[in-house]
Amino acid sequence: MSKMRTIEWDSKAHQLIVINQRLIPQRLERVALSSCQDIGQAIKDMTIRGAPVIGVAAAFGVVLSALQSSSDNVTMLRQDLEQSIQYLGSTRPTAVNLQWALERMHMVARSSDQPAGIRQSLEREAMQMADEDVETNQAIARHGEELIEDGDTIIHHCNTGALATVDWGTGLGIIRLAHEQGKRIHILVDETRPRLQGTRLTAWELKQYGIPYDIITDNMAGHFLSRGMVQKVIFGADRVAANGDVANKIGSYMLALAAYDNVVPVYSVFPLSTVDLDISQGSDIPIENRDPNEVLDIQLDGERVTPEGSSALNPAFDITPARLISAFVTERGIVRPPYFKNLSQIKGKK
Amino acid sequence: MSKMRTIEWDSKAHQLIVINQRLIPQRLERVALSSCQDIGQAIKDMTIRGAPVIGVAAAFGVVLSALQSSSDNVTMLRQDLEQSIQYLGSTRPTAVNLQWALERMHMVARSSDQPAGIRQSLEREAMQMADEDVETNQAIARHGEELIEDGDTIIHHCNTGALATVDWGTGLGIIRLAHEQGKRIHILVDETRPRLQGTRLTAWELKQYGIPYDIITDNMAGHFLSRGMVQKVIFGADRVAANGDVANKIGSYMLALAAYDNVVPVYSVFPLSTVDLDISQGSDIPIENRDPNEVLDIQLDGERVTPEGSSALNPAFDITPARLISAFVTERGIVRPPYFKNLSQIKGKK
Repeated sequence: MSKMRTIEWDSKAHQLIVINQRLIPQRLERVALSSCQDIGQAIKDMTIRGAPVIGVAAAFGVVLSALQSSSDNVTMLRQDLEQSIQYLGSTRPTAVNLQWALERMHMVARSSDQPAGIRQSLEREAMQMADEDVETNQAIARHGEELIEDGDTIIHHCNTGALATVDWGTGLGIIRLAHEQGKRIHILVDETRPRLQGTRLTAWELKQYGIPYDIITDNMAGHFLSRGMVQKVIFGADRVAANGDVANKIGSYMLALAAYDNVVPVYSVFPLSTVDLDISQGSDIPIENRDPNEVLDIQLDGERVTPEGSSALNPAFDITPARLISAFVTERGIVRPPYFKNLSQIKGKK
Repeated sequence: MSKMRTIEWDSKAHQLIVINQRLIPQRLERVALSSCQDIGQAIKDMTIRGAPVIGVAAAFGVVLSALQSSSDNVTMLRQDLEQSIQYLGSTRPTAVNLQWALERMHMVARSSDQPAGIRQSLEREAMQMADEDVETNQAIARHGEELIEDGDTIIHHCNTGALATVDWGTGLGIIRLAHEQGKRIHILVDETRPRLQGTRLTAWELKQYGIPYDIITDNMAGHFLSRGMVQKVIFGADRVAANGDVANKIGSYMLALAAYDNVVPVYSVFPLSTVDLDISQGSDIPIENRDPNEVLDIQLDGERVTPEGSSALNPAFDITPARLISAFVTERGIVRPPYFKNLSQIKGKK
């Protein structure tokens, strides 16, 4: 892994320096984002992706908006900020971490009446959120690591690693800690169509951590589960409803079903900012539909293979019902059913 | 669709002319196969694919072997033929149609004591198998069409069309007939990783038949099923055990699970030559593992996206337990549970 965080704030140049995740694994390239619009665009086009890190990136979008607003009048500054918050919040509808981070920034913008004070507080808040994210992930890893046993083969969906967060990762952070503690584990990496976050990002991270893995296509998971070759399934979450239903990367639901059918535990791993107690069940979570070309633009042997004029559908997330999930892993510990009671309890706890 | 069959025997030139399925949809190109080895290689590398058609193609491999054997001695000719049969039977282990077709050729080779007579009988038998395959598929379509309702949205996995057979298709043949009879149907085409038979072959066929479709990645099926947007799931079979467990293209099991979880019927469609009463349950069916590069060689935006040195697993088929399948569609009618009794009954029936 690179020694730098996935996103880093340059407080002198007023720039957010981010790893361009669209180019991994071909190249490790950083890009400097110097406006709220830049950050919004980078979230939309998945230069920055992963629920935890897009929240923090959006917070820096608000910082850049504040620093660049010419307004010396507090009311007008706040109007500029509200516009930026609304814009950033619209970039990706499913991951609630984005709304959560923006809500924090909104509150900070209300905490002072001085434009200079607001700007300073916003910058401090975003930097603190970045640090908190790393601490949160390390706490998640400590709790989750107990679930992993020596010799486990684990199916992992999408990317929940350092790249999905400011640093360290959520689901992959657990795997990384278990590996560092000497547990022998093997990962089956779901390639995660259509954007191939598994093949591109998770395999790239695992290779650097020295954790053995094989890439599989998403539709193979059931085969390995049914043959008794898998002991755990791990994925993240983009939004968790009060009843424990999980919105996560498309394919999570079918993976969880296959695990459930073979009595293999499924763990969904996330910071508690992912839990949205205002949403009672998964079917109420908005699902982002992305550009069909993400499905159609696929090449084999150097040639595009989609018949001309074909259309495609591209929902980016699906809902895994709570009944299929064995436990959640959060920074405050492992949460087991009944989820409605236990999620609100742990989220409310100080 | 092309006016020609997927494979056609040129009895003058002693060549099997086949559509090169590796090049579709980019180009519709025919290739002439003039030896048993050619045909075996074409089956292995999926120039010819689809359980029903590889059986018939292999039969012509035996014909070519007979025509090219210099042996005028019946014992030696039979030895040559047995070698060819063994070779052809080893090209792909899962689809039992291959073994079934080769067994028929083996019996024909025993039916005469004259080398010339054997050669003639083998050629006649293979040509008859090709014709029978088309008739079988049309019978399947007539039975299966009754299951399709006006307005249905159907998820289809892999390719079960004209390209998977000598002509017309099995699962897709049902869809085609329902469309021709004026039923308004919409197909969600599973792209079917890793070889993308859905995107490449099924979408190409549907486009020519004028049947509306959208391509989806395999891992999206659960989402559409859970939203109530799908009324049927249809796929083929490469081998069906006596208890009704189905070996079919990798991903069928997870698709069937998702349909079952949403009370959507799953139909597996095949000629009765696919039923292997000698195998009592799915876990006894041999599963072919193919070259990992079929998983790793994937390109997005013109670039290979797999980290260097990555390994992959590539089982080409999985087992869908009989409990997840609502009915089978065969040339002799629809088969419903209990499968153990009803499959052997219908297969035994003359």
